[in-house]
Amino acid sequence: MSETTVPAGIPTLGVLGVPGGDPPDLERLSGRARVEYADEGSLAALLPAVDALLVWDFTSDAVRRAWPGAGPRPGWVHTASAGVDRLLGCPELVGSETVITNARGVFDQPIAEYVAGLVLALAKDFHGSWELQRQRRWRHRETMRLAGTHAIVVGSGPIGRAIGRTLMALGVEVELVGRRERPTDPEFGRIHAGGALDALLPSADWVVCAAPLTESTTGMFDAAAFARMKPTARFVNVGRGAHVVQEDLVEALLSHRIAAAALDVFADEPLPSGSPLWDVPGLLVSPHMSGDTVGWRDDLARQFCDNFDRWAAGEPLFNVVDKQLGYVPDRSAP
Amino acid sequence: MSETTVPAGIPTLGVLGVPGGDPPDLERLSGRARVEYADEGSLAALLPAVDALLVWDFTSDAVRRAWPGAGPRPGWVHTASAGVDRLLGCPELVGSETVITNARGVFDQPIAEYVAGLVLALAKDFHGSWELQRQRRWRHRETMRLAGTHAIVVGSGPIGRAIGRTLMALGVEVELVGRRERPTDPEFGRIHAGGALDALLPSADWVVCAAPLTESTTGMFDAAAFARMKPTARFVNVGRGAHVVQEDLVEALLSHRIAAAALDVFADEPLPSGSPLWDVPGLLVSPHMSGDTVGWRDDLARQFCDNFDRWAAGEPLFNVVDKQLGYVPDRSAP
Repeated sequence: MSETTVPAGIPTLGVLGVPGGDPPDLERLSGRARVEYADEGSLAALLPAVDALLVWDFTSDAVRRAWPGAGPRPGWVHTASAGVDRLLGCPELVGSETVITNARGVFDQPIAEYVAGLVLALAKDFHGSWELQRQRRWRHRETMRLAGTHAIVVGSGPIGRAIGRTLMALGVEVELVGRRERPTDPEFGRIHAGGALDALLPSADWVVCAAPLTESTTGMFDAAAFARMKPTARFVNVGRGAHVVQEDLVEALLSHRIAAAALDVFADEPLPSGSPLWDVPGLLVSPHMSGDTVGWRDDLARQFCDNFDRWAAGEPLFNVVDKQLGYVPDRSAP
Repeated sequence: MSETTVPAGIPTLGVLGVPGGDPPDLERLSGRARVEYADEGSLAALLPAVDALLVWDFTSDAVRRAWPGAGPRPGWVHTASAGVDRLLGCPELVGSETVITNARGVFDQPIAEYVAGLVLALAKDFHGSWELQRQRRWRHRETMRLAGTHAIVVGSGPIGRAIGRTLMALGVEVELVGRRERPTDPEFGRIHAGGALDALLPSADWVVCAAPLTESTTGMFDAAAFARMKPTARFVNVGRGAHVVQEDLVEALLSHRIAAAALDVFADEPLPSGSPLWDVPGLLVSPHMSGDTVGWRDDLARQFCDNFDRWAAGEPLFNVVDKQLGYVPDRSAP
């Protein structure tokens, strides 16, 4: 439920754009909003003048830096991302009356497909086959049958649920782990509380992280967690880089404590070319793209415009982030 | 329905083994069959002495070469493979009373997973990501959303059906193409006749070959077929190498007539290290392993023993190959 105040007349919408990137398609708002673009350098000056802010460049830290300055602040900030950890890194924004909404929903199915693809690629050792192809070598191997294996998905929001659903469709047994326990769930039977993870990890063939980054999930995949996994377990992270203690993951792979991992997100993005992560044996690296299917930016712009319609009409916004929890609670989605 | 004659007393079972490879686990037949092993060199001498033959090394041409010789022939030949093209390459075996059975069923789910993995890997450009990883380069790209794309699966036997089912579970719209039309089908709505393929190809994002190799399917993927596909189409072959006119596929890839392909089977296997196929841009090569998940040989041995039980009891065998059609017709499976 939003508590934003809708301005009289034509509101001013600030857009934190992608430098050199395509702006959002806001054609639908034509005549209904004065759109002002800002980049990292000009955001601070623009902030006092806007009624609402669209964080189109969600990889930028500009909001966190500009927000604490002087002057009025917009009552509504929408970010074109599922994660809101960057925005919530600004205590002044968290403590304000400003309503934050996010892009919950846009990335669910694409990320679920991406994770299913990674899981299958690891099960079937595509990486090994393509390395052998480079060497022009024919070497038959036996691979893993995916059906009947066991996955733990950490994150019970719409992305985690879509991942779980897709893996189940492939015959995988899935346990979902969320912040709090839900003893019954129509799709997954039950949702486990975060505290149950330690006991669940030893049974997993697959551990997938799709959690929001909060105080309690930061660094949750550390040496102790990897030590609980099977030596044949594979770990996939499509959440945030900071969910993982990267050195601990590298050590777990090098010592064969776990079998393999795939990371789409990193503590430092873009991953510097000098990072040791690029060539750890058994580690697959991709550049934070799991949710970004062709047309994703149009989907993000459309979703924002839908929420703008509500805002302009004085209706409750959807995808309102609980600034204490750090994500959109389940009941808030339309 | 089999018409084999069961011998009185303890029958002799010939096994064409894998040279240097593990023999099948036939423990269950202990005391109920005299098991004689042969390799490519000794099969001709053994054939007149066996009541049944298990073709454990299904990659061998030894049966085709040994069968035309003198003396009695076994009444039952079982091959530990889904494809029977090698056996049916022997006219004397085809023309005989000998019943052929195959491994129908063992490979369905593994191959379906493998194909789903390839399709997702191509949709998400994993190959590109891993090449960039080798170069330590971070390059974000937009990838394809799989749900809502359109696949044609050629082959309506259990392998083709399992592939279709798995792709549908991932949100893909699937058309199955078989030898003859079936206007209604509980899972796929309808099965198209082979003659409909030309008209279907222009609509496909994915074309998957999982057909038996017969006279009418040999070379079916040729320049004309690739010319009907979309420039964005991707082709996957898990059938037999001879389904594809390899030069035509290479030309279609080099001229960007189609976007990409993945081959698990080849006209010549193992693919010679000098083959040009190893480094065609957009072509993924794997060494005929799509169905071979851990434990597959045990599954194959168990399946043979199940059929042996029927044979020994004088009951109809399952998975009886129609030697004219070149595969097990639908109604024959148990």
